Amino acid sequence: MPRLSRYFPILDWGRRYDRSALLNDLVAAVIVTIMLIPQSLAYAMLAGLPPEAGIYASIAPLVLYAIFGTSRALAVGPVAVVSLLTASAVGQVAQQGTAGYAMAALTLALLSGLFLLALGVLRLGFLANFLSHPVIAGFISASGILIATSQLKHLLGIEAGGHNLPEMLAAILRNLPETNPITLTIGLGVTGFLFWARRGLKPLLKRLGAPPLLADILAKAGPVAAVIVSTLAVAGLGLVDKGVKIVGAVPQSLPPLTMPDLSPDLLGTLLLPAILISVIGFVESVSVAQTLAAKRRQRIDPDQELIGLGAANIGAAFTGGYPVTGGFARSVVNFDAGAETPAAGIFTAVGLAIAAVALTPLVYFLPNATLAATIVVAVLSLVDLSILKKTWAYSRSDFLAVAATILLTLTMGVEIGVAAGVGISVLLQIFKTSRPHVAEVGLVPGTQHFRNILRHEVKTDPGLLTLRVDESLYFANARFLEALIQNRVTEGCRIHDVVLMFSAVNAVDYSALESLEAINFRLRDMGIRLHLSEVKGPVMDRLKRSHFLDEMTGEVFLSQYDAWRALTATGASDRPEQAAE
Amino acid sequence: MPRLSRYFPILDWGRRYDRSALLNDLVAAVIVTIMLIPQSLAYAMLAGLPPEAGIYASIAPLVLYAIFGTSRALAVGPVAVVSLLTASAVGQVAQQGTAGYAMAALTLALLSGLFLLALGVLRLGFLANFLSHPVIAGFISASGILIATSQLKHLLGIEAGGHNLPEMLAAILRNLPETNPITLTIGLGVTGFLFWARRGLKPLLKRLGAPPLLADILAKAGPVAAVIVSTLAVAGLGLVDKGVKIVGAVPQSLPPLTMPDLSPDLLGTLLLPAILISVIGFVESVSVAQTLAAKRRQRIDPDQELIGLGAANIGAAFTGGYPVTGGFARSVVNFDAGAETPAAGIFTAVGLAIAAVALTPLVYFLPNATLAATIVVAVLSLVDLSILKKTWAYSRSDFLAVAATILLTLTMGVEIGVAAGVGISVLLQIFKTSRPHVAEVGLVPGTQHFRNILRHEVKTDPGLLTLRVDESLYFANARFLEALIQNRVTEGCRIHDVVLMFSAVNAVDYSALESLEAINFRLRDMGIRLHLSEVKGPVMDRLKRSHFLDEMTGEVFLSQYDAWRALTATGASDRPEQAAE
Repeated sequence: MPRLSRYFPILDWGRRYDRSALLNDLVAAVIVTIMLIPQSLAYAMLAGLPPEAGIYASIAPLVLYAIFGTSRALAVGPVAVVSLLTASAVGQVAQQGTAGYAMAALTLALLSGLFLLALGVLRLGFLANFLSHPVIAGFISASGILIATSQLKHLLGIEAGGHNLPEMLAAILRNLPETNPITLTIGLGVTGFLFWARRGLKPLLKRLGAPPLLADILAKAGPVAAVIVSTLAVAGLGLVDKGVKIVGAVPQSLPPLTMPDLSPDLLGTLLLPAILISVIGFVESVSVAQTLAAKRRQRIDPDQELIGLGAANIGAAFTGGYPVTGGFARSVVNFDAGAETPAAGIFTAVGLAIAAVALTPLVYFLPNATLAATIVVAVLSLVDLSILKKTWAYSRSDFLAVAATILLTLTMGVEIGVAAGVGISVLLQIFKTSRPHVAEVGLVPGTQHFRNILRHEVKTDPGLLTLRVDESLYFANARFLEALIQNRVTEGCRIHDVVLMFSAVNAVDYSALESLEAINFRLRDMGIRLHLSEVKGPVMDRLKRSHFLDEMTGEVFLSQYDAWRALTATGASDRPEQAAE
Repeated sequence: MPRLSRYFPILDWGRRYDRSALLNDLVAAVIVTIMLIPQSLAYAMLAGLPPEAGIYASIAPLVLYAIFGTSRALAVGPVAVVSLLTASAVGQVAQQGTAGYAMAALTLALLSGLFLLALGVLRLGFLANFLSHPVIAGFISASGILIATSQLKHLLGIEAGGHNLPEMLAAILRNLPETNPITLTIGLGVTGFLFWARRGLKPLLKRLGAPPLLADILAKAGPVAAVIVSTLAVAGLGLVDKGVKIVGAVPQSLPPLTMPDLSPDLLGTLLLPAILISVIGFVESVSVAQTLAAKRRQRIDPDQELIGLGAANIGAAFTGGYPVTGGFARSVVNFDAGAETPAAGIFTAVGLAIAAVALTPLVYFLPNATLAATIVVAVLSLVDLSILKKTWAYSRSDFLAVAATILLTLTMGVEIGVAAGVGISVLLQIFKTSRPHVAEVGLVPGTQHFRNILRHEVKTDPGLLTLRVDESLYFANARFLEALIQNRVTEGCRIHDVVLMFSAVNAVDYSALESLEAINFRLRDMGIRLHLSEVKGPVMDRLKRSHFLDEMTGEVFLSQYDAWRALTATGASDRPEQAAE
């Protein structure tokens, strides 16, 4: 059944599943579960949802991805950037804390899932390519800054809103006098501990003689330790009476069956944000999946990944969750812990289901400040502004795209930021190719090679102008070529033949075809013939479908050297000397 | 003064102006004036403006273009498509027939002029390249259909509005019973006469023994004859009482000095339409100017053309006109009539000024139906739907762009039509380059050439995979390349070296650089080395600015043949045999 296992990769790896894979997957699942419990609570808070939404989003979606996904190591679930995007999108249609808000998050997950599924079935995954790497890097960094800033209110124990950095900072400054000192103490304490646990705990445990695997699990359990200690402190010392905000009651149940709100108004408003969430989530997910697959010489199928992530999000929509995708840090942990198949994801889901039923009463006294600290420590690792320096050194236009994305994301919000980034990269790409490098070439003596006359000592002929166009010809540069050739031939009055060397022309669109026709007729009016050389097969096939080759005053030469021999006196006399080859 | 004459081309040709040029320019000016008088009245009606606006737009703008423009033959003034765009833009802010409407048209001309001037001074004319040829062709054809349809009401003598084809047709059908039979008779008579004059009059006159030049002038005077005859008929037979609509009183004066309305609201609303009008007008104008210049081995400077057209439009704004550009038919007539310098435009302006002072009382009884017939006959020559067939044959993506432009212009209006056309062409261009042609190549025996293994009998080596990428590498295809290479190497288990042949790679942006880095690391994890060959100078310069070349596991080979010799056992043994070269 090759077709069926294409859409259900589980049929493929499931058949060969053995005891050793089971053991490895179980160990990985335990580690990821320990990491995921505090994360799912924290990211739900970031998304403006009740804590259980994060847990529910970590159960059914993981099982569905395991069935449909192709990556052996990807760990799906709530992630920081998608949670921020969810808060931004759902915040436009409902008030945080209302039933309508949670309902809209389900709708968002459904739309996102259907969009991903449609892209996958139609094999349109390439659409994600419109997001250039610098735009993604800039967007993720800026989102990290926005997310960390949005959590400051929880660390300070104050109220503060805002959808962009200036608004958030202004709101925080306004309410700063109301800071709750105990909340701040917990927040800073946990933040400091988590930063230390990231860097210092594992080496310390190893030095104390813990076996590597145990040291690894214990180090990953840092957030869990912070959760336990701070919860006990709040409960034991009665800190709720002192104004410390806590998670409170979380329903003790398996994921409920939920029905997203399908009112047309809501669907219309959430469609664009859902597309944005899908594309961002997919790009993040597929790049980590590809990196991890390469390490074991495995492959993933991006179109099937779309189906897997689509199924996961549809699952989230019907089980009280919210949009999910593959998490970067979590997947690396899953991979390092030895996960061999997507079954590790199913075991993780079982772990979260147990937590949902058994552990939720225990987090009643968990302070929000602890969750905020978890988020801040996690997202600050996403912030990497070195992309500005790197793109500045490599390419100014990439720098422009990344700088605009960061600036606009911080000041105008996530949607405008990423849309502007995409728009700017596309415009700059068209701009860059609209004035292609065109070299006048001549023959390198003693060879059949033609090189730029400005860079090399070459033979030329006053009657022959040969131009090598270093770009595919299309609408953006078609007129540029027209103007350039007209200028060049009006300068050199003795020119009687023009050859366009097409070795680097990978395509000629209809606009460029019309420009070539115009060039041909204009040159004809001046008594100059137009020739082509080294035209690639696909380009030639296409030109043959038009009248251009019939109307062209000159010929198409297989090589530039053939053109030289045919069109110049020097070239003709070169013949005997070169015929030895 | 080379710098001054760059911005004032008149200083250049004016110095060498002689008696022979004067005579030629005068003859051309007489013919163009005869053609322009009815056109300027008709296009003003199309733009929804009083008739004198068309005459005023044909005086100062022509003089200003003659000072600043670089084309020797371009005839500037009101044209059909720009008049339609003006009606569409100004119709959004004011009611036709009000003072506010005419005032807004001045503002539109000013904004358009300033935008063109800015583009010219900043040398940003390339922005017009975003309009692909098929999109322009589709837009012009669709505009022609819209314009002809909009004039049906004048031919029928009924009221009818609407901004798109369905609306217009519905309005006409609704009011069809109110058709004025005399108006319809005049309209159909003039239309028939003008069509005949286009095709049959000139040959007839020649057969009757008229000298060619005279036959030419008389044939061009067809619209003037129609104007005279129909005006006399309306005046003599008292047809106004029978419901025939006429031009009525036209002020008898030179262009007044006018001040455009500069209220911020109006400027804001008209900015986008002004940009659209500028770009469309510039593209139309520059392509006819370039075609005519080539016929005499002259050149035009597109950036200076922007300045010339900008000055013309600013002139229109302050002298009671409305947006103008270079007209296609009119410029060809000017060129064929022998115009040698832009002075012909100045003489035409003088002709129109005389008409404004002396002839305006004579057009009082001119029926609107005659003007409508002039427009219909003129614009139907713009409608050329063969572009659909041509693009279908040549390239489906160009067809898609042109079909969408035509359909959306007809059904949604001119702004949306052209915007959609631009958007679709850009998206399709990115799409086409997002899945580049990548050929696995091998050595053509007995040569140093490497060709596609699927098309040629070539030597390959099981340990060496050589891929020739036929496209510049940038964000849209970076991930495609990553996936492609990963799939290829996971298929061939014996591969130990991968060479990317860069002969057709004209650029590598930052996204592609990161993809190359990812490819390099992933291959390294699989124990495979990555090499490059035939990297172009500009690409190499840029790669050297990054760490990629240091991190790359393999080498950069000057030629693919060098790579073959270094990386394969067969290649190494080839060496003695090939060393003769």
